Amino acid sequence: MPGPQHVKRRRKLIRALKPALVEALLVTSETNVSWLTGFSGDSSCLLLGPSLCVLLSDSRYSTQIAGECPDVDVEIRNARQTMNDLLTRVVRNAGIKLLGFEADSTTWSDWNTATERLPATTLVPTRSLVERFRQIKDASEIREIRHAVEYAERAFEAMLATLTGDQTERQTAHELEHTMRRLGAHSAAFEPIVAVGPQAALPHARAGYRQLGNGGHVLVDWGGRTETGYCSDLTRTLITSRPSKKLKRVYNTVLTAQQAAIDAIRPGVECREIDELARNVIGEAGFGRYFGHSLGHGIGLEIHEGPRLSPASETQLATGMVLTVEPGIYLPGWGGVRIEDDVLVTASGCEVLTSVPREFENAFVRL
Amino acid sequence: MPGPQHVKRRRKLIRALKPALVEALLVTSETNVSWLTGFSGDSSCLLLGPSLCVLLSDSRYSTQIAGECPDVDVEIRNARQTMNDLLTRVVRNAGIKLLGFEADSTTWSDWNTATERLPATTLVPTRSLVERFRQIKDASEIREIRHAVEYAERAFEAMLATLTGDQTERQTAHELEHTMRRLGAHSAAFEPIVAVGPQAALPHARAGYRQLGNGGHVLVDWGGRTETGYCSDLTRTLITSRPSKKLKRVYNTVLTAQQAAIDAIRPGVECREIDELARNVIGEAGFGRYFGHSLGHGIGLEIHEGPRLSPASETQLATGMVLTVEPGIYLPGWGGVRIEDDVLVTASGCEVLTSVPREFENAFVRL
Repeated sequence: MPGPQHVKRRRKLIRALKPALVEALLVTSETNVSWLTGFSGDSSCLLLGPSLCVLLSDSRYSTQIAGECPDVDVEIRNARQTMNDLLTRVVRNAGIKLLGFEADSTTWSDWNTATERLPATTLVPTRSLVERFRQIKDASEIREIRHAVEYAERAFEAMLATLTGDQTERQTAHELEHTMRRLGAHSAAFEPIVAVGPQAALPHARAGYRQLGNGGHVLVDWGGRTETGYCSDLTRTLITSRPSKKLKRVYNTVLTAQQAAIDAIRPGVECREIDELARNVIGEAGFGRYFGHSLGHGIGLEIHEGPRLSPASETQLATGMVLTVEPGIYLPGWGGVRIEDDVLVTASGCEVLTSVPREFENAFVRL
Repeated sequence: MPGPQHVKRRRKLIRALKPALVEALLVTSETNVSWLTGFSGDSSCLLLGPSLCVLLSDSRYSTQIAGECPDVDVEIRNARQTMNDLLTRVVRNAGIKLLGFEADSTTWSDWNTATERLPATTLVPTRSLVERFRQIKDASEIREIRHAVEYAERAFEAMLATLTGDQTERQTAHELEHTMRRLGAHSAAFEPIVAVGPQAALPHARAGYRQLGNGGHVLVDWGGRTETGYCSDLTRTLITSRPSKKLKRVYNTVLTAQQAAIDAIRPGVECREIDELARNVIGEAGFGRYFGHSLGHGIGLEIHEGPRLSPASETQLATGMVLTVEPGIYLPGWGGVRIEDDVLVTASGCEVLTSVPREFENAFVRL
């Protein structure tokens, strides 16, 4: 989907480059290339500066690029050239003396080749130049994330409607992805986690062969990805048999922690304060050491992107950020509860984009 | 699946390190880590030398590592440490002076951090050390690839049995993956290509909204991935209405080219000779300029790995290699035919691992 938003993004990025340090930026992160151009393929990179915008790619993608980013210059390498050959020629012809590169997505090999072949060019490492802008979503991105949420929620509803106790974690995960695709999603945003009972104590459990009916509760962490690549990310913990008092207490502690965090989200607040609010609720209930991960993260073209809602974060919330809020309590051998929603920071506070019920009474499912 | 094969692989690799150049190797490619240890997670790296074998990971994976690779030492970083912090400490404690690193999978940032923090260690770039060994599959890997082929072929059969003309490319691709998963596959090995009619002229077409009944022929390129990560990769071109003479001629040219290549596969032959045999058949039929890609590639933990069957290859075939053989003819605006099978190089020649019929008469499907 080519659109004026890509032109705007490039303009913003170029304005942020300091010509004395970097005349042009070599964008090697595929996600950043996609965000700046609309191109959805891979194995390609973008050379961007005040007077140039060239996508370097190969012949498989000629047709696709013409459709997806007609406003970008294109250099296609021939079958005998490597990407480095093509890059060398384009940088030389453009006479770039100070070339920024993305230090976190450029391999040592590619850097070394460029250094050897471009003696007249100084390579300047840069970090998070594009990622920093990507934290703030524009209207088209928020629309896409809403679609990603919709795929996820509709598939979850369908899953609940057909749930059986003999169904395995794997089957449930696969059904979720398949339904999201039938609804129009490109795919799941990540391999869904479906974790029965004690398995739910592992925050990154892999869906296995346990049956849903055998554990008292099931944690489901899933999300959709739209055709253009935008993600949603949700978690619900479902109760599949008469719950213990402990399960109720753990569940409601997590829910209260999440609500405390969401209530405080608004532009200008420090990310680490939001994390702290949730962490304090869990700590006061006596479960502090069982909440080991950070409270949340940005979502967009990547399932994990900036900013982080973590004790170590130094970022302030700003309008247009979209974040997960996902406190959890994990008790080894017993199980775990996590509740995760996606939140858009708005001028006046925030909007929760996800709407699957999350109260304890609504967590019961019939198998 | 921990097993003696991982120990053997590490031993082989260590023997290949020249102590005067490299005392230990830092393995950063996730695929290489998995091949050397059996670990199936990510965000981890392996430090390997004659007297050390340490997997560096984080707390999410502690339990998984204990199960998957009990014979490996483990260092888990704590929440306050980065992977680089942990690596620095382990390398310093081991007193490594010459540390090899994988130049094609280490980012400039990670290399730079290690260089700054380890002044007593020389970092030595290496290339394809592990990949070279991975070209030759051992018995356990061949077994896994056979499973990957089986998932793919059974799902294809189910697809054929239920094909309808109003079904879209996307729906067909999604059904294929879903069926492979139901059969036990982890996932598709890659996003299946389903390309109707003229769309089949793009070797990397993305499955879209065209209906199968509207194009005369459909190209399907798909494969399965096992739980341990091994891939299969097949292509069939299906005929959905009365074929033109041209389609028959193109189809049979591709098939003859493929058979000529397969017939010549045996240990000791140059990969580029195999490519040439197929290319000559297509060239002599007058379609030379419409076969733009190389003839095939290795498969294993990655869907594309060494060796390549290409004009530029300098590798000789050896027993235990598993390769795709996939000639194609792509006529812009008209369509394309590709036929792809997976072949194991054996001591006496080769074994075709795939068995979906590929003759012209067998390409007809009822919609």
